Amino acid sequence: MNFNSKPVKGFLLDITGVLYNSDPNTIGCAIPGSVEAVNRLYAESMVRFVTNENTRNSMHLADKLTKLGFVLKEEHIFTPIPEAIRYLRAHQLRPHILVHKNIAKEFVDLDINHPNCVLIGDAEEGFTYEAMNAAFRVLHKMNDPLIITLGCGKFYQRIDGPCMDVGGFAQALRYACDAKIVGIGKPDQQFFKAAIDDMGLTPDEVVMIGDDIVSDVGGAQKAGIRSVQVRTGKWRQSWLSHSIKPDLLADDLRSAVDMLLQKTVE
Amino acid sequence: MNFNSKPVKGFLLDITGVLYNSDPNTIGCAIPGSVEAVNRLYAESMVRFVTNENTRNSMHLADKLTKLGFVLKEEHIFTPIPEAIRYLRAHQLRPHILVHKNIAKEFVDLDINHPNCVLIGDAEEGFTYEAMNAAFRVLHKMNDPLIITLGCGKFYQRIDGPCMDVGGFAQALRYACDAKIVGIGKPDQQFFKAAIDDMGLTPDEVVMIGDDIVSDVGGAQKAGIRSVQVRTGKWRQSWLSHSIKPDLLADDLRSAVDMLLQKTVE
Repeated sequence: MNFNSKPVKGFLLDITGVLYNSDPNTIGCAIPGSVEAVNRLYAESMVRFVTNENTRNSMHLADKLTKLGFVLKEEHIFTPIPEAIRYLRAHQLRPHILVHKNIAKEFVDLDINHPNCVLIGDAEEGFTYEAMNAAFRVLHKMNDPLIITLGCGKFYQRIDGPCMDVGGFAQALRYACDAKIVGIGKPDQQFFKAAIDDMGLTPDEVVMIGDDIVSDVGGAQKAGIRSVQVRTGKWRQSWLSHSIKPDLLADDLRSAVDMLLQKTVE
Repeated sequence: MNFNSKPVKGFLLDITGVLYNSDPNTIGCAIPGSVEAVNRLYAESMVRFVTNENTRNSMHLADKLTKLGFVLKEEHIFTPIPEAIRYLRAHQLRPHILVHKNIAKEFVDLDINHPNCVLIGDAEEGFTYEAMNAAFRVLHKMNDPLIITLGCGKFYQRIDGPCMDVGGFAQALRYACDAKIVGIGKPDQQFFKAAIDDMGLTPDEVVMIGDDIVSDVGGAQKAGIRSVQVRTGKWRQSWLSHSIKPDLLADDLRSAVDMLLQKTVE
């Protein structure tokens, strides 16, 4: 798959490490050129934001990005939170909840009595031994223990260094009680599809731009979406020899957008 | 393999869940009949204790067991701690250390500058996000990240309920940075061998009695040791259909010892 065969009509963008770098103490900082790149996409194409970020809801993310200088619409941001709520309801799941304190209120309407699964998100400092063990004890009682995880990320890049993401903690619980994991968010195909449907496009008409070789690049490709790996955020030089090969490698979002809008004009 | 073909000349006993049940607030309580069973083994056979317990060293374990009424020798208790120190030294490893605060002092003589691996034990409340992330950052920098773990246990049984063991937390780090794990302690064959050598016996002359189907029963069998699963500690009824089959299933240590000493007398 390449960029000459079919024009790109819409863009899916990861947020953290692509639009901005996060910081534990401030609102973070925009990656140079990314504000302008998003403006160009809104003016010349279509764009949606697909993030596994789950320490904040879409409203808070939109607010933060606006403060960083971005001009975008909250309803164009897709996080795993609403998708998880849909999944839990559709499968009659009553979760024991281990998520970030910032998003706990998103789940208050769910039935959580006699839990029959664990919902785990990027709890950050909420990943205490006590909290992990409480989730473990819920799973340990079940005949078919089930973990619903908000993304399966290995790590994300913060300004102060790389940070463990939810994926490892979900694996810890899985190992301890031989549980099954269902991942909501990237790289699940359904998650990309929701954002593509929202633009009224098909997978082969869009491109995914991200900093994660597995969740962004590999996930999009499995869903039939062309993908761009940017050299910002969590990008690692060693990924040049990764089994997953992006359709395009770009220095940053600006560079990727410049190249791809050029192509679609050609 | 069974118990008629070759007499049992020596016994390997797991400690937690076999000799006693642990309790977070007290020294725990001896499992009925186990004090007498250990006395019988010292009087009529040979016995060593092989435990993955690493929240205390052998001296503290011996002290605790003595308080619970057991009569045994500290030097007969094999924990993964000295084995880990040998392994780290033999492989010129300089660990970043994430272990229980009770055993941190065991490792003070190791070179820990510019760490080239992570040593992880059952840190219990020490498994904070901050501590996990610090270990992750050390591994993340390495070309071939290496985790040395004091046992790979899934969970252990405490009086107040089951508790996550170190295995899950090691898996969390492994997943986050695609690290290799080396497990010290059960079910590693070398660990059983050290205790068997200490009795001057061979694997086919001893029997392992434990409550963990994987670490105790499966591990011993792989080392050519007959094994007994007791229905105490973390025993689960669902293990009756486990792919690992013990050579003998016994209600508890007393029952196992009564049956096996009987056999060896026959």
